[in-house]
Amino acid sequence: MHDVRFKGEDILARQLEMAEANYSRLHERGIRSVSVMGAIGSGKTTLIERAIVRLGREGLRVGTIAADSAGDDDHRRFVAQGACSVNINTQDDCHLDAHTVDHALDALPLDQLDVLFVENVGNLICPADFPLGTDREMVVISVTEGDDMVRKHPKIFAQTDLVVVNKVDLAAAVDVDPRRLVADYAILNPHGKIVLAEAKSGRGVDEILALLGFECTNTQW
Amino acid sequence: MHDVRFKGEDILARQLEMAEANYSRLHERGIRSVSVMGAIGSGKTTLIERAIVRLGREGLRVGTIAADSAGDDDHRRFVAQGACSVNINTQDDCHLDAHTVDHALDALPLDQLDVLFVENVGNLICPADFPLGTDREMVVISVTEGDDMVRKHPKIFAQTDLVVVNKVDLAAAVDVDPRRLVADYAILNPHGKIVLAEAKSGRGVDEILALLGFECTNTQW
Repeated sequence: MHDVRFKGEDILARQLEMAEANYSRLHERGIRSVSVMGAIGSGKTTLIERAIVRLGREGLRVGTIAADSAGDDDHRRFVAQGACSVNINTQDDCHLDAHTVDHALDALPLDQLDVLFVENVGNLICPADFPLGTDREMVVISVTEGDDMVRKHPKIFAQTDLVVVNKVDLAAAVDVDPRRLVADYAILNPHGKIVLAEAKSGRGVDEILALLGFECTNTQW
Repeated sequence: MHDVRFKGEDILARQLEMAEANYSRLHERGIRSVSVMGAIGSGKTTLIERAIVRLGREGLRVGTIAADSAGDDDHRRFVAQGACSVNINTQDDCHLDAHTVDHALDALPLDQLDVLFVENVGNLICPADFPLGTDREMVVISVTEGDDMVRKHPKIFAQTDLVVVNKVDLAAAVDVDPRRLVADYAILNPHGKIVLAEAKSGRGVDEILALLGFECTNTQW
């Protein structure tokens, strides 16, 4: 039993080393990077689509890493918005890890990118244990998942300083009060920022980008 | 590398043995059991709440095992509907396994139960690899997650013969055509059954229960 635990610790230490290597690799090239975690179907892809277009208008070249268990739906959506993208199918794995991201970076034209978005597999548990080496991290949830999403997954919210509550236009239809999610997050992460958004219409996107360090001067959508 | 894979196979074989032990334990007591998997916030809990009430009116005593990373929101909801329930916090694990269910069964008054619902952690990937030993399995997704949920998670849909597409009343609001989900499922699992439901209003619940082998004779809600 001790042996197994010891090996587990080794694996996480090795993941951290690989994440630090990814961080250095991106930093040396001046690429700003954002890891996007969140529940299945919460709107991560739509939010990144919006960011690709918005940052593109600011003259920033955006790359993406799209991860899903199977298929290339998200990858194709990013390409359609003009991003350089790599698709990853994790199959039986429910999260990305730093080693997989390292290989994805090999496949991207890093010298031609200013920004990188890494979209994790839809999951609010395991991604919390696997740093990828990005500058920033954000978690996306949707009001349609219910008002208990934050308190059910304390680890990922406690350690992530930017949270997006998406699909707020549907809050009344699903009888969910977003203030409950905001209040639960304030307890877990008093210094964190939380944005109510509607990625489909673009509501909240500029605020999210500003909190990620991107000031959009072109105010036209 | 070979060594690691071999150990992985051993773990899954051991899980299967424990699942078979759970199955025998429930079967010997005449308890019919259903494993409920599905995405985060897809409506698994609401569906089980409805089933507790519906089957209760048929004179069936329902037990539940409620699993989440943290908290006891779902467990308390089941208790409020009259179920004997056990709460499990999986913490860093994104799925239940047969061993955890075995311990939960120890805590339930099995001699006083006719039906058991096991609600897994919200995840469409890892639960596919961990049989729990129930008679039946079902997967719940919601239209609010998008029309790509089935094809993004082929394994769990290919091996699960009952799928619920929940929150169909919101399909137009999120611009999702449930027929796309139905068509993707028909390719992955031609013999499977798929039900369009609205657990909140009760729509589809009797059809789901019938497909699970429970005929409700009391037609009043």
